[in-house]
Amino acid sequence: MDGDERAIRDVVERWHRATEAGDVDAVLDLMVEDVVFLVAGHAPMRGRGAFKQGLRTLLATHRIESSGNVREVVASGDLAYCWTELDVSIRPRAGGEAVMRSGSALTILRRQADGAWRVVRDANLLPPA
Amino acid sequence: MDGDERAIRDVVERWHRATEAGDVDAVLDLMVEDVVFLVAGHAPMRGRGAFKQGLRTLLATHRIESSGNVREVVASGDLAYCWTELDVSIRPRAGGEAVMRSGSALTILRRQADGAWRVVRDANLLPPA
Repeated sequence: MDGDERAIRDVVERWHRATEAGDVDAVLDLMVEDVVFLVAGHAPMRGRGAFKQGLRTLLATHRIESSGNVREVVASGDLAYCWTELDVSIRPRAGGEAVMRSGSALTILRRQADGAWRVVRDANLLPPA
Repeated sequence: MDGDERAIRDVVERWHRATEAGDVDAVLDLMVEDVVFLVAGHAPMRGRGAFKQGLRTLLATHRIESSGNVREVVASGDLAYCWTELDVSIRPRAGGEAVMRSGSALTILRRQADGAWRVVRDANLLPPA
């Protein structure tokens, strides 16, 4: 495993842990300002601001636990993709059943001027909740 | 638009035209042997052989018409991604209503030893039929 692959796997791992901890700023630091999230059956969600608002709203009432099996990381120059199999649990803080979802994500990352890899595009293939 | 972007847009365009013409071999030439197709709510479809069988089966009874608006192409080294907004119509050859679907695809391509860009991974965000 080379340095780029290790760095990108670390981005994925930090994303899971920061989401679980409810640390929205730490998640936002892993993506670029003009990030785009593609989800089946929905319009693309564009920009870090939209993601921030959505995550804050969800975390206000739910706890998210996620884990991922990174199937593949390929980098060339300043561009990389990562294919991950995700298991996500979204549990109401007020109690009650967690919603469990599993599926793939295909994520594009770019190496930034500061040397860090950040998410620029993400295709979420998890089945709708 | 540089040469790589032009070549990748040409792959997308040839994919649409070959599918519409029912020219399965021409579509297969646009992807690598170990291609993976990710679709929401389904297991990944792995390999050119599986794609070939699925497309042949569908084309036996249906006519596929598709068009795409390429939103973005980014290449670095031998790796590229392409974000496309697709409109797909699947019409029974026996007559009857066409099924229409619209949505995004996020496609990863790699430049091959022969210099051609071919699809290696594809995330299909169209809503389930």
